[in-house]
Amino acid sequence: MRNFRMLLQYEGTRYQGWQRQESTDNTIQGKLEMLLSKMTGQKIEIQGAGRTDAGVHALGQVANFHADTQMTEKEILEYMNRYLPEDIAVISLKEVSERFHSRLNATGKTYCYRVIHSELPHVFDRRHAHVVEQKLDVRAMEEAAQYLVGTHDFKAFTSNKRGKKSTVRTLESIQIEEHVSASMQMQGLQDEICFLYRGDGFLYHMVRIITGTLLEVGAHKRKPEEIAEILASGLRERAGELAPAKGLTLLEVRYQ
Amino acid sequence: MRNFRMLLQYEGTRYQGWQRQESTDNTIQGKLEMLLSKMTGQKIEIQGAGRTDAGVHALGQVANFHADTQMTEKEILEYMNRYLPEDIAVISLKEVSERFHSRLNATGKTYCYRVIHSELPHVFDRRHAHVVEQKLDVRAMEEAAQYLVGTHDFKAFTSNKRGKKSTVRTLESIQIEEHVSASMQMQGLQDEICFLYRGDGFLYHMVRIITGTLLEVGAHKRKPEEIAEILASGLRERAGELAPAKGLTLLEVRYQ
Repeated sequence: MRNFRMLLQYEGTRYQGWQRQESTDNTIQGKLEMLLSKMTGQKIEIQGAGRTDAGVHALGQVANFHADTQMTEKEILEYMNRYLPEDIAVISLKEVSERFHSRLNATGKTYCYRVIHSELPHVFDRRHAHVVEQKLDVRAMEEAAQYLVGTHDFKAFTSNKRGKKSTVRTLESIQIEEHVSASMQMQGLQDEICFLYRGDGFLYHMVRIITGTLLEVGAHKRKPEEIAEILASGLRERAGELAPAKGLTLLEVRYQ
Repeated sequence: MRNFRMLLQYEGTRYQGWQRQESTDNTIQGKLEMLLSKMTGQKIEIQGAGRTDAGVHALGQVANFHADTQMTEKEILEYMNRYLPEDIAVISLKEVSERFHSRLNATGKTYCYRVIHSELPHVFDRRHAHVVEQKLDVRAMEEAAQYLVGTHDFKAFTSNKRGKKSTVRTLESIQIEEHVSASMQMQGLQDEICFLYRGDGFLYHMVRIITGTLLEVGAHKRKPEEIAEILASGLRERAGELAPAKGLTLLEVRYQ
């Protein structure tokens, strides 16, 4: 059995997330497995590094699968891009050691959450950014973010109810970058904020709950210091709202 | 009667172009007129500065309409953005002199045509850029563009068969800018070219035929010098192919 590693991009808007589900065939993993099974005549299972939620996008998702095939890497890549829907693309495909596992071998991930401050609708960014009407205090959000960087129990920042597994993770950095988007630059209208999260791994909904909480700090609904109390409490209800899926993109998965 | 000037943005993908048509209500002008007629209880006609084709986008379309209404500018703007589909937005709306006409008073326009060089599908740019597999020779395209800048009879660069009106226009500049798109920068994969056209006015299909012709120069299928002959011939069949609509965006309309 050969093992193939893929770099994938997708716009999550139309899908029920990455993970295959019994109730729907409308998942990214499902679409890829169906295509590869058809291509090889075998039942193919794909391992994805990150299980992105419904509506979340990826610029650098990594996945691998085992298959018995004589096809070259190039042939597989071209076959897949020919038959995949236009909102999913295979950017590269390489044969790797049989022991490579995209999720278990991953040592880190980077996510980006895009927020646009505007009172007007955003025609061109509407699928890929969360638009907020209120002006945000970036300095306050940066101060709040510092409480989250480092190794912590992020139990208060996940929606996962199954309580057995460790909820300790290391957030290496949170960068809050201010941009002016090209589409608005001409009108001098608004600014965009990109929250960049680098960590060793992320819990279910973790990036979106952290972002939702930081946005409440940015809107002066909470004080930066509250973050320490929320972390210590371990209570989901103390943290902020879940930020909408469409603003989130998996940028990259890192390996040793 | 009050006269209102609007700045509009839209993603043209789903529409049959700007101009109202008898055969379909799926045009930008049609959607706007229907909404304003409903809002005012009067039959409203809109004048748009540029009649963008089906699939062409706008970041800075300008349009005006006359209406008998007591509503404030802000009320009209908010009403429109509440009821317009999410791929059309009113960015600003101001009452202007009764004699202002968005098309007749316009002194210039700027269009941008985006081309991406890549052998891979482009998930995030698929609606707004034309993807070409072949690497393009930007220097050759710049040389070719110089033959087009200035005041010329652009008859060879329009699809319009009705031959009465003047086909003389002034192209103030063609800038060919090379970018690396954010989505691909991480993978170091491809480059993007933006053709910026500034002129006093543009004929039907003019920007797309010029772009299609420049792309043939960039792919070394034609020599830059041929442009002079094509211009002089006045024959549409001598020019290059019509570039796809989705790469084109109306960036701005200029007034004195």
